[in-house]
Amino acid sequence: MTHPIISDLSKRYTTKLYDAKKRIPVADLTVIYEALRLSASSINSQPWKFIVIESDAAKQRLHDSFVNKFQFNQKHVKAASHIVLFAHKTHYTRDDYAKVIEQDIEAGRTPEANREAAFGAFAFAELNTDAEGNTETWTKAQTYLALGNTLHTLARLGIDSTPMEGVDHEMLSELFADELRGYRCDVALAMGYRCDENDYNAPLPKSRLASHQVIHVL
Amino acid sequence: MTHPIISDLSKRYTTKLYDAKKRIPVADLTVIYEALRLSASSINSQPWKFIVIESDAAKQRLHDSFVNKFQFNQKHVKAASHIVLFAHKTHYTRDDYAKVIEQDIEAGRTPEANREAAFGAFAFAELNTDAEGNTETWTKAQTYLALGNTLHTLARLGIDSTPMEGVDHEMLSELFADELRGYRCDVALAMGYRCDENDYNAPLPKSRLASHQVIHVL
Repeated sequence: MTHPIISDLSKRYTTKLYDAKKRIPVADLTVIYEALRLSASSINSQPWKFIVIESDAAKQRLHDSFVNKFQFNQKHVKAASHIVLFAHKTHYTRDDYAKVIEQDIEAGRTPEANREAAFGAFAFAELNTDAEGNTETWTKAQTYLALGNTLHTLARLGIDSTPMEGVDHEMLSELFADELRGYRCDVALAMGYRCDENDYNAPLPKSRLASHQVIHVL
Repeated sequence: MTHPIISDLSKRYTTKLYDAKKRIPVADLTVIYEALRLSASSINSQPWKFIVIESDAAKQRLHDSFVNKFQFNQKHVKAASHIVLFAHKTHYTRDDYAKVIEQDIEAGRTPEANREAAFGAFAFAELNTDAEGNTETWTKAQTYLALGNTLHTLARLGIDSTPMEGVDHEMLSELFADELRGYRCDVALAMGYRCDENDYNAPLPKSRLASHQVIHVL
């Protein structure tokens, strides 16, 4: 299939070795950040923070978070251009949703007079809140929606990437305590440019289950 | 920002009323199905089924699933062109991953001799399996990654859509018992074309939290 969408998605793959000399141009970063921000989420809740690791100091902190676990991902931290920590709010509350409604009013989407009525959609958050106020299954899922959007964005930009569930959320919560307070990071995304000669995964064929195994048209 | 990626993502929105006379052309459906299939997932687990509601009979079944809850979404079932049920495996097992490895061998990605070694990655599934064998927080998140990829795909194709967490997973499990055995559907995606005159949401401005509220570059 030669459609540009399929060509983009067929080319993207999980990079296993980055070229440490290459960095993402600012113009592309601007597109990536805006694509992240525009990601859809349930009731437009946006229950996330995207922590971008760019400076050497931040990279050292992230590097150190691999001291106990998932060392196979540690090498990406300094070789990749940027790493995004996708973090979800563990306890999403009415106060969080109030910020969304505030923004809706400011954008002219919701009239000020409808402020209270706008909280009606918050019922979805309540449906996904357990007895302890934990909303993680729901909020975590939203960050993966943003991740899927970002992978597609990077494929279009011709930027390589590595989604990493192999991150130590406990160490991250410690080393990025200020940035992650109230949030948990279960997945990160390294972004940059493959090391063409030495990434074993780059030349391997893409593999997916056959269409009839996953898609059923009724 | 005039980059085509941002222009696509800015135009997409949650359609609230479909034109029941318009149907997605087969050529676009082919792209959508292939984009779904190519979605990334942790350890390439693909712990999902995409049930596409196309025929009148299937639409009637889906229509009936709204008898108890979320009636505000019922109107999309017959007016939208197609609806995809995104379903995740509730108990993802080594047998499920064996199918992925089988496909990897067939695609020439994994040598037959490495079959057993390839199960090493399954440790990630185990990390996300509770004492009862439930893997839902992990597998559900993967379906949202596919959802994010699909929303981006539809934006590029100029096809409207409505992500719906307002689906009754219990009724779906009953009415689509054969198709959903072992899987659970917590989110569906209506796809089609807006009713231009009567969709109140179409002309409203898009609203997202400000960049500084969600993106932190360190």
